[in-house]
Amino acid sequence: MELDLTFPAAELTARLVDIESVSGNEALLADAIADAIGRLPHLAMYRDGNAIVARTAFGRPERIVLAGHIDTVPVAGNLPSRLDGDMLYGCGSCDMKSGVAVQLRLAAQLTAAARDVTYVFYDCEEVEAERNGLLRLSRNSPEMLAADFAVLMEPTGAMVEGGCQGTLRAEVVAGGERAHSARSWMGSNAIHNAGGILDVLRAYQARQPVVDGLGYHEGLNAVGVTGGVAGNVIPDECIVTVNFRFAPDRSPEQAADHVREVFAGFEVKITDSASGARPGLSQPAAASFVAAMGGEPRAKLGWTDVARFDSLGIPAVNYGPGDPTLAHRRDEHVPLAQIAECEARMLTWLAA
Amino acid sequence: MELDLTFPAAELTARLVDIESVSGNEALLADAIADAIGRLPHLAMYRDGNAIVARTAFGRPERIVLAGHIDTVPVAGNLPSRLDGDMLYGCGSCDMKSGVAVQLRLAAQLTAAARDVTYVFYDCEEVEAERNGLLRLSRNSPEMLAADFAVLMEPTGAMVEGGCQGTLRAEVVAGGERAHSARSWMGSNAIHNAGGILDVLRAYQARQPVVDGLGYHEGLNAVGVTGGVAGNVIPDECIVTVNFRFAPDRSPEQAADHVREVFAGFEVKITDSASGARPGLSQPAAASFVAAMGGEPRAKLGWTDVARFDSLGIPAVNYGPGDPTLAHRRDEHVPLAQIAECEARMLTWLAA
Repeated sequence: MELDLTFPAAELTARLVDIESVSGNEALLADAIADAIGRLPHLAMYRDGNAIVARTAFGRPERIVLAGHIDTVPVAGNLPSRLDGDMLYGCGSCDMKSGVAVQLRLAAQLTAAARDVTYVFYDCEEVEAERNGLLRLSRNSPEMLAADFAVLMEPTGAMVEGGCQGTLRAEVVAGGERAHSARSWMGSNAIHNAGGILDVLRAYQARQPVVDGLGYHEGLNAVGVTGGVAGNVIPDECIVTVNFRFAPDRSPEQAADHVREVFAGFEVKITDSASGARPGLSQPAAASFVAAMGGEPRAKLGWTDVARFDSLGIPAVNYGPGDPTLAHRRDEHVPLAQIAECEARMLTWLAA
Repeated sequence: MELDLTFPAAELTARLVDIESVSGNEALLADAIADAIGRLPHLAMYRDGNAIVARTAFGRPERIVLAGHIDTVPVAGNLPSRLDGDMLYGCGSCDMKSGVAVQLRLAAQLTAAARDVTYVFYDCEEVEAERNGLLRLSRNSPEMLAADFAVLMEPTGAMVEGGCQGTLRAEVVAGGERAHSARSWMGSNAIHNAGGILDVLRAYQARQPVVDGLGYHEGLNAVGVTGGVAGNVIPDECIVTVNFRFAPDRSPEQAADHVREVFAGFEVKITDSASGARPGLSQPAAASFVAAMGGEPRAKLGWTDVARFDSLGIPAVNYGPGDPTLAHRRDEHVPLAQIAECEARMLTWLAA
């Protein structure tokens, strides 16, 4: 399974898509990438499981990380890749093998540059955080990720998307007292009592704060509800699972406090949370990047691994080919022109 | 496994309790009952699976059915039976082997009487209606159940409980539109929309109508709720399962219309319903029964098989030893004195 890095990025994307790499099954693709990188003498390679790090050593004062995950969500009858006009279809075409193709093209072409570059290809981004290859690298070999600025090549429609929102999940519990449903007034109906939780959600006014110049948009939503004992029993518990997407001017702790305050009077169990990342676009590296990529930067609303770079003290943005709203869809696809555009702009910026 | 029908009813109850007969496993108990009945020459016996019918042929103008189910809910560490002071504990002690013991004692003693009597012992009352032994008898041999009046010897605390309320279950569905929870405003949250269903339930004013002189008490309650796709998805469906307990002045069709009307604007799927039964205490047989048993009759709020007799055109009441609110509980028990009282009052009434 050989990757020819002289191919145009669009064609290389198709090759990458055709090497199935659902989370946990990235070995074949990681081998192919390691093999291709291994043939580039200007790069030093490091491998940790199915994560690969390739670094230039040009001796420049500034180092940039270009990162991308090589895994995909499960295949949904959308392999092999398929070209339709100027669109490439297939599992991972948008999220995010087109971005990985751009990384590989840059790795091959930038034998000299104004900035040192660290290319990171990692596994298991589409599954639970504990398996995430970037997290593993950051624990095993944090020095490999050291940099002044990072670009996560997730799909953004070739626009710079700064920072990301945090996410928190909590179980909000309404209690009650069991009784036979033929004598419901002897108990207290937990599902009816959960109406108070839904009242809060329906009345909630989400903030749309501007953070470092970018407009975020929070959201507090029920993503699950469960309650009931039997068809003839007044239930004594109803659990509403809520997901709070919060702007990066709140920490996870502040987000948790906010959720507890909003649902005062109900039991609230925080089940998981991940911090967001401020866009940090005023940092010099970020500013030069934004200028080079063109367009008006916008806020990233979904959570991405830029938050992990942020927690390592490395400013990071999202930038890559493909419409982010197509990610994880059976019909995901990417415009060939956008892949080429990303490659060209990145090449210009890094070489300058 | 021999049942000695000369034992006092309280002792006979303990024997019946100790023959485990969880729904579907009634054969051993049915055999024991058939064997005991078979030794009584004044009774003609008919058996259909684990249901047994025993009939006198005294040639009286009036025929009474005494009916009881011989199955129990699953054993919950409450076998064998246990005597504690004047209380008998054990699975089925209250619901309703003490009532069955009274039936058997009457069957043995009433070798002559002022009324003809049909004793019905049936299986599978505690499970889905389609398996109910009384329903099976009513289909296979309706002539066996023919009577002027029926007493269902379910636990009522030795008070006459007239009629029963009907029960209806429905799924009330709130719709929505899926979206990623990071951009919740692109969708419509079905769980939030279900708040409208809970609003209706919380505001619902239940009727407490008087029907044929007895006060009923309706109730409309959520007994289940389910919704949610994934922790990061705005859900497009939320289903609230409601249970409507309705007084016997409504038919199941009227009850269904009422539920649809109450939840106007939401999709309503009626999943099952069972009609109630009017108390019919003004009928001569019922009136004489009430007078003989003493006390003030009250309405039966739970659904019982009196509704099945009602649908066969046979007025019926509930009357038996044991507190109905103890039924199905691990600690169910019955006062020995109540068993003896029921037996004595029934004997007097039937012999007169």
